[in-house]
Amino acid sequence: MTFERMWTDLSEVGRIAATGGYQRAAYSSADVELRTWFVEQARARDLRVEIDGIGNVLAWWDPPADALGDASRGKGILTGSHLDSVPDGGAYDGPLGVVSALAAVDLLRERGTRPRVPLGVAVFAEEEGSRFGRACLGSRLAVGSMGWSVARGLRDADGIALPDALDAAGLDSVDLDGDGPAGDLAQRISCFVELHVEQGRDLVDRGAAIGVASEIWPHGRFRFDFAGEANHAGTTRMADRRDPMLTFAMTALAANKQARLADARATFGRLRVEPNGTNAVPSLVTAWLDARCASDDALAELVAVVERQAAERAERDGTSLTVTAESVTGALRFDADLATRIAADHEGGDWPVIPTQAGHDAGILAAAGIPTAMLFVRNPTGVSHAPSEHAEITDCLVGVSALADTLERLAQ
Amino acid sequence: MTFERMWTDLSEVGRIAATGGYQRAAYSSADVELRTWFVEQARARDLRVEIDGIGNVLAWWDPPADALGDASRGKGILTGSHLDSVPDGGAYDGPLGVVSALAAVDLLRERGTRPRVPLGVAVFAEEEGSRFGRACLGSRLAVGSMGWSVARGLRDADGIALPDALDAAGLDSVDLDGDGPAGDLAQRISCFVELHVEQGRDLVDRGAAIGVASEIWPHGRFRFDFAGEANHAGTTRMADRRDPMLTFAMTALAANKQARLADARATFGRLRVEPNGTNAVPSLVTAWLDARCASDDALAELVAVVERQAAERAERDGTSLTVTAESVTGALRFDADLATRIAADHEGGDWPVIPTQAGHDAGILAAAGIPTAMLFVRNPTGVSHAPSEHAEITDCLVGVSALADTLERLAQ
Repeated sequence: MTFERMWTDLSEVGRIAATGGYQRAAYSSADVELRTWFVEQARARDLRVEIDGIGNVLAWWDPPADALGDASRGKGILTGSHLDSVPDGGAYDGPLGVVSALAAVDLLRERGTRPRVPLGVAVFAEEEGSRFGRACLGSRLAVGSMGWSVARGLRDADGIALPDALDAAGLDSVDLDGDGPAGDLAQRISCFVELHVEQGRDLVDRGAAIGVASEIWPHGRFRFDFAGEANHAGTTRMADRRDPMLTFAMTALAANKQARLADARATFGRLRVEPNGTNAVPSLVTAWLDARCASDDALAELVAVVERQAAERAERDGTSLTVTAESVTGALRFDADLATRIAADHEGGDWPVIPTQAGHDAGILAAAGIPTAMLFVRNPTGVSHAPSEHAEITDCLVGVSALADTLERLAQ
Repeated sequence: MTFERMWTDLSEVGRIAATGGYQRAAYSSADVELRTWFVEQARARDLRVEIDGIGNVLAWWDPPADALGDASRGKGILTGSHLDSVPDGGAYDGPLGVVSALAAVDLLRERGTRPRVPLGVAVFAEEEGSRFGRACLGSRLAVGSMGWSVARGLRDADGIALPDALDAAGLDSVDLDGDGPAGDLAQRISCFVELHVEQGRDLVDRGAAIGVASEIWPHGRFRFDFAGEANHAGTTRMADRRDPMLTFAMTALAANKQARLADARATFGRLRVEPNGTNAVPSLVTAWLDARCASDDALAELVAVVERQAAERAERDGTSLTVTAESVTGALRFDADLATRIAADHEGGDWPVIPTQAGHDAGILAAAGIPTAMLFVRNPTGVSHAPSEHAEITDCLVGVSALADTLERLAQ
């Protein structure tokens, strides 16, 4: 019941009535409301709350004094996820991991579990990167893989600087001219487990409610600038044009075809057109390619093929092409021993161990050397980052139980 | 010299340093400055200035009392064009016709011409429709083909209502709750001649500095809404997607091909993508098709073929398509006798009579029953609605002389 009540608490925060999706941009009023709700939930459970200068919240269930183990076991075990969303995103991506973590604490207490090390529930800030353009901003600062000097220079699409957004969200405790969040999370915890709604249909195909992550595919964002010549859409003969929209159109179709052939992913989902007038041949079409493959080599090859085909078409169209790799992240393999330990020997058999193509805070913590695992909960449609993202309540409750079991195993 | 001095006067108003283009949206500060400049130029020439409630300015050279003909010849002869621009537009589209008209008045006075009827120079407001979405807004209201009750309901992209924009531009003389501009221009003038920079390369190919318009091609704006399903760009298998960007891409290529085959024009230059995120398969791509053909039937056939190909691709992509005709304007033929009278018997032979694919205030006045003609001045690149739109100064001066000759012929 406790899971359902928390889920209902969150269901209206940042909800868009017209679509059923959510607007929970980092440091928005919805995000502030969600963080406040989490702190209240933590305090109601007598958890010790820490909030750092980027808005990450850690809520600790400290072991009673008589249960403390030796010093080497004093590092905490952390679970949790994030509460922000992409624009018009779904309800589950992020919040499922946070709500399940709180529910798992409740379940462990019902079971009479007494932790021998601190057990923490984390809410990481700006995981989606929807506002400041850097995914997993909070966890990067928490482990120190991004420095505060870089972060404080970030601005959102409206030109608002990150420190001002933090200030407006009531998160003004950090020394804005100083070093920012401590970046020492890797020294404080022995492992991290993130529960997350699955964002594809692997578990549906396998008939499993729960899976464990093996790896995150390599992925990258590549900006394609197609430059042509603005011109009048009525009076300019087709043969006299240098229309970059045509070059883009062929490139979008080519990327799709190449990704299908390579069993990879390629998407042009974001576009900017100048001058973007109905009666004007565009001067510039900027399009972002999101590409993900099973290996680093395959990713490089996919992007190279798409770029080559785009350049050939640009030649025909009299346009020009510049490709800029805005970010490229290599393959990240989660701790294989940890995954096996989590997945093995359950009633009904082992949980499947599957890859994911999405970035997560868990990937940031793993890359920082923290033994890290992810649990996925089945998503019947496979839809993610959209209003129809879903998990059945029965699967969510299996997820809570699985997370509680996992935390108990890790604490042994 | 007078043409060059006026051209220099205007060269910095609304200019974008980075591109060399112009931002002269209707009722913007640049537009107000241009209108003020025009009124000063008119008063410096002792022209009688009228400004109506939508911001159209008419400057009249009235005949001296002893030169008035009989009553039937009392209707005025009007020339002129507009001063507003598309975003990042060129210097010539509009201003060339206004400056040439003032220079033609000077030239006629130098020649000792004494008008027997009022000779007017017009500046029509919001010709481009870039701000309030209706091309030729000022001339439509001037002839009454759009009513004030419709116009006052228009809003710009920022939600500003037309009456408020007029007020902000100091054009608050109109009765905003009443009938608005009089709409009686057709009763007041016997003919209209608009000089305009050519927007293609017909005159370049013909080796002629000046041409006369025969007709405006039929044209239309069609909104294509491609609807799919938003999804995660990383985790969603290619086969599981319903990606409307692909349907759009194929449609843009198909429109281009069909227009080439039909010797017509088809352009997708304006696009809106939702949610427009790098890591999201779009839920909706809205694209506007600008299509123009030599005949009404050809236009209907072109759009039907593109729509059919788009619908077939939508079937394959699992997306859906809705096409909305936002505006369709049939063929407009200018007064053939008038064009012949203007074009014939010049030194060096007749001026060529050529079609145009662009809408103009001249088209609105012609459709309202006013005998109307257009003069085109050669544009070496053929580029229009863009910074590199151009006319050589020698051709501009030939244009002034040609306009003065034409006004003399019409006054006979």
